[in-house]
Amino acid sequence: QSNVTIYGIVDMGYVYRGDNVVDGVKNRSGIDSGVANGSRIGFKGTEDLGNGLKAGFVLEQGILADTGTSAQGGRTFGRQSFVSLGGNFGTVALGRQYAPGYLLLDSIDPFSTGTVGQSNNVYLGEVRLDNLLAYVSPTWSGFSFSAGYTLSAYGNESLGNESVAGDVRAWAISPKYVNGPLTLGLNFHEIKMKSTGAADGDKVRVYDFGGSYNFGVVKLGAIYGIRKADGVDFGQFEEGEDSKQWLVGVTVPVSASGNVLASYAHRKTDIANSSKDAKVSQWAIGYEHWLSKRTGLYATYADINNNKAAEHAGDEFLIGSVGDATSGGGGYQRGFNVGIRHFF
Amino acid sequence: QSNVTIYGIVDMGYVYRGDNVVDGVKNRSGIDSGVANGSRIGFKGTEDLGNGLKAGFVLEQGILADTGTSAQGGRTFGRQSFVSLGGNFGTVALGRQYAPGYLLLDSIDPFSTGTVGQSNNVYLGEVRLDNLLAYVSPTWSGFSFSAGYTLSAYGNESLGNESVAGDVRAWAISPKYVNGPLTLGLNFHEIKMKSTGAADGDKVRVYDFGGSYNFGVVKLGAIYGIRKADGVDFGQFEEGEDSKQWLVGVTVPVSASGNVLASYAHRKTDIANSSKDAKVSQWAIGYEHWLSKRTGLYATYADINNNKAAEHAGDEFLIGSVGDATSGGGGYQRGFNVGIRHFF
Amino acid sequence: QSNVTIYGIVDMGYVYRGDNVVDGVKNRSGIDSGVANGSRIGFKGTEDLGNGLKAGFVLEQGILADTGTSAQGGRTFGRQSFVSLGGNFGTVALGRQYAPGYLLLDSIDPFSTGTVGQSNNVYLGEVRLDNLLAYVSPTWSGFSFSAGYTLSAYGNESLGNESVAGDVRAWAISPKYVNGPLTLGLNFHEIKMKSTGAADGDKVRVYDFGGSYNFGVVKLGAIYGIRKADGVDFGQFEEGEDSKQWLVGVTVPVSASGNVLASYAHRKTDIANSSKDAKVSQWAIGYEHWLSKRTGLYATYADINNNKAAEHAGDEFLIGSVGDATSGGGGYQRGFNVGIRHFF
Repeated sequence: QSNVTIYGIVDMGYVYRGDNVVDGVKNRSGIDSGVANGSRIGFKGTEDLGNGLKAGFVLEQGILADTGTSAQGGRTFGRQSFVSLGGNFGTVALGRQYAPGYLLLDSIDPFSTGTVGQSNNVYLGEVRLDNLLAYVSPTWSGFSFSAGYTLSAYGNESLGNESVAGDVRAWAISPKYVNGPLTLGLNFHEIKMKSTGAADGDKVRVYDFGGSYNFGVVKLGAIYGIRKADGVDFGQFEEGEDSKQWLVGVTVPVSASGNVLASYAHRKTDIANSSKDAKVSQWAIGYEHWLSKRTGLYATYADINNNKAAEHAGDEFLIGSVGDATSGGGGYQRGFNVGIRHFF
Repeated sequence: QSNVTIYGIVDMGYVYRGDNVVDGVKNRSGIDSGVANGSRIGFKGTEDLGNGLKAGFVLEQGILADTGTSAQGGRTFGRQSFVSLGGNFGTVALGRQYAPGYLLLDSIDPFSTGTVGQSNNVYLGEVRLDNLLAYVSPTWSGFSFSAGYTLSAYGNESLGNESVAGDVRAWAISPKYVNGPLTLGLNFHEIKMKSTGAADGDKVRVYDFGGSYNFGVVKLGAIYGIRKADGVDFGQFEEGEDSKQWLVGVTVPVSASGNVLASYAHRKTDIANSSKDAKVSQWAIGYEHWLSKRTGLYATYADINNNKAAEHAGDEFLIGSVGDATSGGGGYQRGFNVGIRHFF
Repeated sequence: QSNVTIYGIVDMGYVYRGDNVVDGVKNRSGIDSGVANGSRIGFKGTEDLGNGLKAGFVLEQGILADTGTSAQGGRTFGRQSFVSLGGNFGTVALGRQYAPGYLLLDSIDPFSTGTVGQSNNVYLGEVRLDNLLAYVSPTWSGFSFSAGYTLSAYGNESLGNESVAGDVRAWAISPKYVNGPLTLGLNFHEIKMKSTGAADGDKVRVYDFGGSYNFGVVKLGAIYGIRKADGVDFGQFEEGEDSKQWLVGVTVPVSASGNVLASYAHRKTDIANSSKDAKVSQWAIGYEHWLSKRTGLYATYADINNNKAAEHAGDEFLIGSVGDATSGGGGYQRGFNVGIRHFF
């Protein structure tokens, strides 16, 4: 019992999305789960093994509390599930884990990739990787890095390690520098299809560079990223070719318990067999109010602007939409949410 | 850790159901889960926010312990999952929650809607509602009320809020009066189909009135309900038209650790395109014996009597059956169960 | 909270399987969950009822931590889920539980039915039974026994207790004798199909006899088993007829924290309509190193040798494969694994 810590979040809110981009889809109002932070329950623990060694585990389940179901497509511990061994050499972990690049984006986005204004409405990236062997280095004078490799990023490794649908290999390395108020981060990763079918060898190379500076009265953050696609960009099942994308964000503490948040994000993606590029921009503004360290209220407004190139090409996954942490899909242009989150 | 309370029930028993109403279905013997109380595990907590404010959450999973699976159709936290904020103004909660009318029935039924003799074999009602915004008032001199609204009672809100299958809107208000041994309760609720298809606008209005009085040597309870159906009664996916239904129940403490329970329930439902009404009656008698406050044994016998109108009309959901908290389906006339339940 | 103990294991490792038996299936490398011990999280508790009586429960979920999903085919508490009542008379338990014969095999196999060298790659047996009424006797001078009965070993009891697919009846009795370093165990069980279809009445009788002796410098174990199949052996969905199978194992403590493990297993199964028997042999060697009582590393090598009879007959389930606790399928001849397990 003393070995296990239970923790989690229940986040519920009202979400409105309107002014459709895609024909025939109307406004939606809903009471949704995980609006600002994905609702979850987790179990974790660490053990001191002596000699500076430490073992640990995390089992974290995503929850759609509005219907009482599991998030991440119904996975039981779909958010994180891994065992780790740490020491002076750093920490090695095995299991389903966050992609390092996602953690960089999450740390720079003032909305922490949540709410209708989440950066990942626009900014493409990999979120979680299955079967990951990950490594986090010690910190040397503020510098550290994480790295990872998996033979199959989405689902169990197939027999022969190259199914017809295609195992997705991925590797990543993310250096990081932290010095007082300054944080700088790089992310390189590659995802590559290994299949017995036609897409064998297709790969996407991802480069992200970002940072933030906390001036006290305001925190500024920015990230710029490139996705180079050999063939098509199949990461997170997006279709398209090369992308360029960036985000700027600002967090302004306006009281002891309140912050104003704002961000602007933009992406341009080449479309195969088309002379036009898909372009999408989003701005978002929000306010969060903390009733305690563990419980807070929030409200967000976001507006997204797609050109019609992705829709005309039928590449619906390239259409930016004002989604939320639960359901990023759809094709809406404006969104509003208000809700409550409780950490335990 | 200190923020979270783990609780639950494992309830397992032997259930016999025999004397079939529906042709070709024979007797069934089984070791079943949730016979008297649905097996479950839950995680809950509250946080004092100061100024009389209180935040809280409940995540409660239904379990079929006989096969190690999830109840409520496989939902992870299918029993309850919500976050709440309470104060002098009452309590507001968001998420998957009980329908107020179900709580009224549950409090009056001596079998607490469990065992082969559960009232809900006969008495129609909504149990849980998804995406619910609920409110529970403070108590004024014994008087209080709860209320709720949802845009989609069964499953996530659809894009456009009116899918082809139909989002089910629901609102409810349930006043309650408690004065010493006396409890009185009312329930009004309406469920309404909002769809792009044919059933758009079909609605069911529900009125329940019940109460109980605890004389000490015996507790008596009764509830009477009407379901007015425009079109058909699609609540909980029952077919039929208007229903009238009632239940009387009695609980007799026969020792410090034992209670005798008995109930009689009746329902009459109009059947579309038929001059005959579906009628079903049930009586049930049981005994519960507590080995401690947390662990008890129980035995129940129930007998159900359907006229043939629902069967002839093919409206199988209107056929009352001696079910149990786990599997209410089938068409049996007599049932017996014996089992054990352990609360933790 | 004080009523519930949370426990579990996260076990992750690298698994290589190569040298295919079945044509067209190539080597596989993977980061897998539950390599040496199935990854899991469990909740359990007991209550002292006085008079020597004790109530208890176990809810134990199997986890595939490499992808964050549930093991046991997605069941929520697929490993174990039961309530129990114990006293001077022994312990009665109801729910999903281990088959007594599996516990015997597990106690004798040096690899505890885990790793690529697990005995159950070769040695057939039933693992878990649904809807089980189980009994464990008190211990008289080292002697005790367990027994169980279920009307449906795999899935909920059907209406009429004999579905078209077939309910599987099972009963088991397993006497056991423990005296200091000596453990002896017997297992008899029968599984029988009860269906409205063609396989009605098909049954398999299982006899296992095994034991172990701990000399301190080495622990020796052996088990011999017979499966007598009327019709075909449908247990755990294997096809075939009578089987004879045995295992010898040895555990050698080589240091305060390290053990060398080795085993040899063999099975011969009659094949319907064939004059040739399916034969499979496996030897395995491994090393386990404990960093603490709760955290350990392990490495295992196993080699399996099938004759071609099962493959030629198309009875792929009779083909022994170097599996692991997670995915026993496939048709490989050699396997290697290295990994870490952390108990909490």
